[in-house]
Amino acid sequence: MKKLIAVVGGSVIKSEKIRQIAFETGKEVAQRGYILVCGGMGGVMEEAAKGAKSVNGIVVGILPGKDVSEANPYIDIPIVTAMSHARNAIIVRSADCVIAIDGEYGTLSEIALAKVINKPVFGIETWDIEGVIKVSSAKEAIDIFEGKKQL
Amino acid sequence: MKKLIAVVGGSVIKSEKIRQIAFETGKEVAQRGYILVCGGMGGVMEEAAKGAKSVNGIVVGILPGKDVSEANPYIDIPIVTAMSHARNAIIVRSADCVIAIDGEYGTLSEIALAKVINKPVFGIETWDIEGVIKVSSAKEAIDIFEGKKQL
Amino acid sequence: MKKLIAVVGGSVIKSEKIRQIAFETGKEVAQRGYILVCGGMGGVMEEAAKGAKSVNGIVVGILPGKDVSEANPYIDIPIVTAMSHARNAIIVRSADCVIAIDGEYGTLSEIALAKVINKPVFGIETWDIEGVIKVSSAKEAIDIFEGKKQL
Amino acid sequence: MKKLIAVVGGSVIKSEKIRQIAFETGKEVAQRGYILVCGGMGGVMEEAAKGAKSVNGIVVGILPGKDVSEANPYIDIPIVTAMSHARNAIIVRSADCVIAIDGEYGTLSEIALAKVINKPVFGIETWDIEGVIKVSSAKEAIDIFEGKKQL
Repeated sequence: MKKLIAVVGGSVIKSEKIRQIAFETGKEVAQRGYILVCGGMGGVMEEAAKGAKSVNGIVVGILPGKDVSEANPYIDIPIVTAMSHARNAIIVRSADCVIAIDGEYGTLSEIALAKVINKPVFGIETWDIEGVIKVSSAKEAIDIFEGKKQL
Repeated sequence: MKKLIAVVGGSVIKSEKIRQIAFETGKEVAQRGYILVCGGMGGVMEEAAKGAKSVNGIVVGILPGKDVSEANPYIDIPIVTAMSHARNAIIVRSADCVIAIDGEYGTLSEIALAKVINKPVFGIETWDIEGVIKVSSAKEAIDIFEGKKQL
Repeated sequence: MKKLIAVVGGSVIKSEKIRQIAFETGKEVAQRGYILVCGGMGGVMEEAAKGAKSVNGIVVGILPGKDVSEANPYIDIPIVTAMSHARNAIIVRSADCVIAIDGEYGTLSEIALAKVINKPVFGIETWDIEGVIKVSSAKEAIDIFEGKKQL
Repeated sequence: MKKLIAVVGGSVIKSEKIRQIAFETGKEVAQRGYILVCGGMGGVMEEAAKGAKSVNGIVVGILPGKDVSEANPYIDIPIVTAMSHARNAIIVRSADCVIAIDGEYGTLSEIALAKVINKPVFGIETWDIEGVIKVSSAKEAIDIFEGKKQL
């Protein structure tokens, strides 16, 4: 069975910095051998998916709507939930850990839904919530997740 | 059609103060003519439900598990979702506004899921999140919600 | 805690006979002291809700869409799931028994989702599925459910 | 984006014939270039997944429970819904077509949930439901789905 890492974040990219972080995060997730799972839509989700595909990773998109047409172009495997934001619970539960980048209330819900079931959550330029491990890059996040770096 | 107000908060009561706030909130919701909707479990949910029943209110419990046996004793109408924390999205979407009291990550997810769909969220002794309107009582929250008090 | 009976059926009324059956079923459910739970939309759901309200029953509508505006006019308590047909699982799980009237594939899914969790399902002019108890009226269904009539 | 075919069926294998049909169906789905999506559990789901893996296919399991431990050993990508049978709606909505093999009420719910959103459903030794296209093999089902064989 493959290991999955969820990348969650805003559906709008707010700066070039965030774009790069999202892309590099998706790329790192794939290079380290994980499947990227995300919400399948635009913004951080799309940039991360693009990053993962740039190194031939596999990208799963857990979509909120009723059909695959809303998926961003970098989704390999669309899961069509038709359950709106409640699908956020599925994204984080399917992942072994969660990396949150920037984001608004949707991202906050994913952080909270991950923490309530004790999933490790790493944060880059995102909500400052107790229990979220602040990191500067996906590399640092995955190093901590894999036990290669101490907290 | 009835108007619903959601009361969300921790499944454990952490102090006598929180117990009283939760009870008074449920009572106020019912006295003002609203149906109380909550997660149906213990803690803040149970105290709020008890408060609503003390004045003959109606209480809906949107349960996370597979059967009604987990509902607290003050639930009139149990809705059995069997969808764990994803049911938090249903609680807040069914409500006209949300009052959050204390709470942990589950409560945080409800605040976030409410804000992402633009529901008014009032907070009493809870997470300090941008967009949540801090109030000192349910009376103040409902006064603001009904336009009887300006922000 | 109240007992709930789910009435499921087509979103379009196909004959005057079906209209009367749906109306009488909702009325009987309410008169016998149960809360009516249904999908909240038109057709059989609406006629059953109308029947329950004709005798001052309480009607819960578990809606598939994103807001309450789609509810039929006889819903007292709208539960807004935003999860499309997956909400059918919640309707039947929340009920103590299910009465199916006429209907298409949506109704068939509710029959199946009820049977898979061992809820009693009664059928009036509906899908002929093994395990569904054929009855001629809601009165007969509830008599059997309450043990007043033997199968 | 990959195309997905859902294979649905009972969680218990009732005969050697059904075992072979399930295995051959998973194998055919993978050989024809589709990702296999299933409920991730035992019985028909497991045999189909095993068949797909026998030719290096990719298998997605949309699990009903709270963690990946319940997945059968042939699942590559586990999606953990924690929403019990309501996940059946996600399985069929994520697929371009559905192949039903044998099965009980859970399978019937998947057939119904697929038909209500107009997904093509092919049936092998399963429920005899109007609108389900009876076929003798997955090859025949996919030939019809791809327009290589007329109905």
